[in-house]
Amino acid sequence: MDINIKTALISVYHKENIDNIVKHLTNLAIKIISTGGTKEYIEKLGYEVTSVESLTNYPSLFNGRIKTLHPSIMGGILFNRDEINDLEESKQYQISQIDLVIVDLYPFEQTLKQTQNADEIIEKIDIGGISLIRAAAKNYKHVLVIPSENEYKFLIDLLVNKNGISSISDRKYMASKAFEITTNYDRIIYQYFNELPLVNIPTSPITQLRYGENPHQKAWYIGNFDNIFDKIQGQDISYNNLLDIDASINLIQEFDEPTIAILKHNNACGVASSSNIILAWHKALEADPISAFGGIIVSNLCITEELAVEINKLFFEILIAPSFENQSLKILSSKQKRIILKQKAFPPEIYSIKTALNGVLIQEKDLHKINSNTFKVVTEKHPSIEETEDLIFANKIVKHTKSNAIVITKNKQLLGSGTGQTSRIDAVKNAIEKAHKFNFNLSGAVLASDAFFPFSDSIELAYNAGITSFIQPGGSIRDSESINFCNQKKLSMIFSNFRHFKH
Amino acid sequence: MDINIKTALISVYHKENIDNIVKHLTNLAIKIISTGGTKEYIEKLGYEVTSVESLTNYPSLFNGRIKTLHPSIMGGILFNRDEINDLEESKQYQISQIDLVIVDLYPFEQTLKQTQNADEIIEKIDIGGISLIRAAAKNYKHVLVIPSENEYKFLIDLLVNKNGISSISDRKYMASKAFEITTNYDRIIYQYFNELPLVNIPTSPITQLRYGENPHQKAWYIGNFDNIFDKIQGQDISYNNLLDIDASINLIQEFDEPTIAILKHNNACGVASSSNIILAWHKALEADPISAFGGIIVSNLCITEELAVEINKLFFEILIAPSFENQSLKILSSKQKRIILKQKAFPPEIYSIKTALNGVLIQEKDLHKINSNTFKVVTEKHPSIEETEDLIFANKIVKHTKSNAIVITKNKQLLGSGTGQTSRIDAVKNAIEKAHKFNFNLSGAVLASDAFFPFSDSIELAYNAGITSFIQPGGSIRDSESINFCNQKKLSMIFSNFRHFKH
Repeated sequence: MDINIKTALISVYHKENIDNIVKHLTNLAIKIISTGGTKEYIEKLGYEVTSVESLTNYPSLFNGRIKTLHPSIMGGILFNRDEINDLEESKQYQISQIDLVIVDLYPFEQTLKQTQNADEIIEKIDIGGISLIRAAAKNYKHVLVIPSENEYKFLIDLLVNKNGISSISDRKYMASKAFEITTNYDRIIYQYFNELPLVNIPTSPITQLRYGENPHQKAWYIGNFDNIFDKIQGQDISYNNLLDIDASINLIQEFDEPTIAILKHNNACGVASSSNIILAWHKALEADPISAFGGIIVSNLCITEELAVEINKLFFEILIAPSFENQSLKILSSKQKRIILKQKAFPPEIYSIKTALNGVLIQEKDLHKINSNTFKVVTEKHPSIEETEDLIFANKIVKHTKSNAIVITKNKQLLGSGTGQTSRIDAVKNAIEKAHKFNFNLSGAVLASDAFFPFSDSIELAYNAGITSFIQPGGSIRDSESINFCNQKKLSMIFSNFRHFKH
Repeated sequence: MDINIKTALISVYHKENIDNIVKHLTNLAIKIISTGGTKEYIEKLGYEVTSVESLTNYPSLFNGRIKTLHPSIMGGILFNRDEINDLEESKQYQISQIDLVIVDLYPFEQTLKQTQNADEIIEKIDIGGISLIRAAAKNYKHVLVIPSENEYKFLIDLLVNKNGISSISDRKYMASKAFEITTNYDRIIYQYFNELPLVNIPTSPITQLRYGENPHQKAWYIGNFDNIFDKIQGQDISYNNLLDIDASINLIQEFDEPTIAILKHNNACGVASSSNIILAWHKALEADPISAFGGIIVSNLCITEELAVEINKLFFEILIAPSFENQSLKILSSKQKRIILKQKAFPPEIYSIKTALNGVLIQEKDLHKINSNTFKVVTEKHPSIEETEDLIFANKIVKHTKSNAIVITKNKQLLGSGTGQTSRIDAVKNAIEKAHKFNFNLSGAVLASDAFFPFSDSIELAYNAGITSFIQPGGSIRDSESINFCNQKKLSMIFSNFRHFKH
């Protein structure tokens, strides 16, 4: 049912853009009710406004804590226009209907970031505004709620282009927004009271995916993909694509030099840095061309025409880069299902959340960036400059590889990795075998481990393959065995002091 | 500051146990204010009660939508007793202070489960109750809120054992509960309006963990571990422990026969079923005794003394079982840091949530149970009864192994697995090599793959190792190559029709 707005209640913390709304309301001869600061602001603009106080016969009480919490206001929003009994009661108690409720809540979250004064923080818990929003949303069959300044654009469009007439779907949509806002508002207060970090759990936009990790699982992505990427072409993005894209951009942002990485099942199967991005591509692909088939490619540089010609030779599922030459997009569009993403931003996530054991696990993301100032050479021999650069390169990759993880690199090229293993020695063995499978000579290569070596057997295995330098967090009670082995064989080893388990 | 309750407001949907509360309130000469059904209920019990209507001079309006939303009630809760101005205004407007607010909200979630009638559902969005709870919680310095019937026990204890005197920490604790309840209440409404599944995101109890996946990451577990386990002994449970425990109990619940599994980094490194649990233990350990070191052991049967003697020989981190003989606990307590968990329940989780790309991914968990009625033999040769049982056994394990995953089994014993690989052929190669490393003869063994084989090369590799039967979901455009290879070599293959990617 379409509804023509006759009376609007405005109660907002931020007054910005209210002038524009009031102008359009007045143009449509909509009666405006308001209170306190908002009322004064509207009056100063020269518009007519009815005070809440004149309807409730109460002033604003208790330093503004009580203004609208009165049957004349709450009832005017809440009564059911379809019920004869409600209509009669509204007449009897002189409660006029309110068709539009515009609220902008006290900035609780912002206040938390600005002060630690508990009184000041508590004062910013909005009571009246939340009650108005929730009442209007409950009665969405008859009332339009504008539950935050983010929705003013929607309202102005309705006032300007639809004569202020709202459809049931307009009102239901805004009601859904209203409960999204109240949920998030109270979640921040809950986190504050429980001394939890202010973890942001996005609640919109909601995208139902075709399915989850497997076709028999329903799935949803709630978040704003478009804030991070421009999708240039390709089929619908799947649940598994989203996991891979997430892993890809977390990995690629580690590198400053021209770098390309290729991933499968959230793990890198090829990574290379080079002064020349074409060379980086060839070296990344060379690491494991079999796994690269159907993989996710991510570059930290523009996809030039020359690079596109090379990449186009591979069957891949997703290509991510910060920019694309026009000519390269023409080449890549030869297969329309491929997903091509232009990365606009790196998501500023600080926390990760996952469900486990009838609960949720929240943790700070592993944001530690390796830095030669924080690591320590623990062997008699020091790694050469080239080895040190390769160790740092390898450690960046192992941080983003599923545990237990081992990464072997040389000349800033991934040569082999052991991923997701139940024992460290198997991870080392797999990494070496994989490098050998693709004909890499490991003489002078370096090795990174995501956690400490429990015994020296892993070092010995790597030494026998020609590996000369190691990076690991250290911390085993048998660290000295590993160090002694290195000293005996004139190998070098760095303790990074930062473990990088990832599951 | 301690506060002596003088006036209590009661507004509850469920009347259960209110009789007990009212009795204790009356014993302490606390004035009771109430409305509608609750008031009638209290009067019938024979206690004195002041009606909200007598304070507001309004009746209950609009079919109960408006009862307490009035300055006399909301102000009585909200005014600041420390502010002279607020005290004067409360006198001037005859607003008496309310020190205790007891609310039990309309059962919105329950109504959702009972009806699809939108009017009925919408009517159960509580407006007044939420306003009361939030107002009382905001003013927790002066007011005690009891925001749900789950907190009656707390209140009764306070009334009986503390003469109704609440401390600031009592009131702040209940305020934190209040915002937990309003958050969850509005989240369900948000999910309803957005046609999302009713995903439960636990908000309590909150446990800060020592750290997350790594020592430089802060972490929290929010959930009720004690609902699932009795912790019998051991050190504090870490973030990584929680992930492993979750993986363990998801895996073990697949099996009906006596079964033991050993896990590391969320993947099984040993699993065996047998009519004899001691034999199952030896066969599980045999699969990879190196990985088992420091691992997580899970049994679906009681840990007998005999079994404890055997398990005690291994250095392990966690042991989970449904029960323990007393004698076995004595044996296992020889190392006090070991975590021993008695599993009470299997968590009824339907959805999993994880953060990715500035958003959250929600999916139905992979709850598909393999069933011989839903799979199909696609080769000329059919697997024998023993092979079929092993294929089912292998498929249960591969479902809980990180992708790409391959599992080789024989006589209901895991012989080798390839986990977390970027190519399927590497997963097959790793699984075979691992089985050979621990001296298993793969002649007559079977193999499960979590997803289809893109080429027949994996089958060939397995055939050369002696494997005779396969289970995979099927679905590749080259399925016929794999089937033809099997037919040529007189191997059997089942299509399960269910992929089991897990990341």
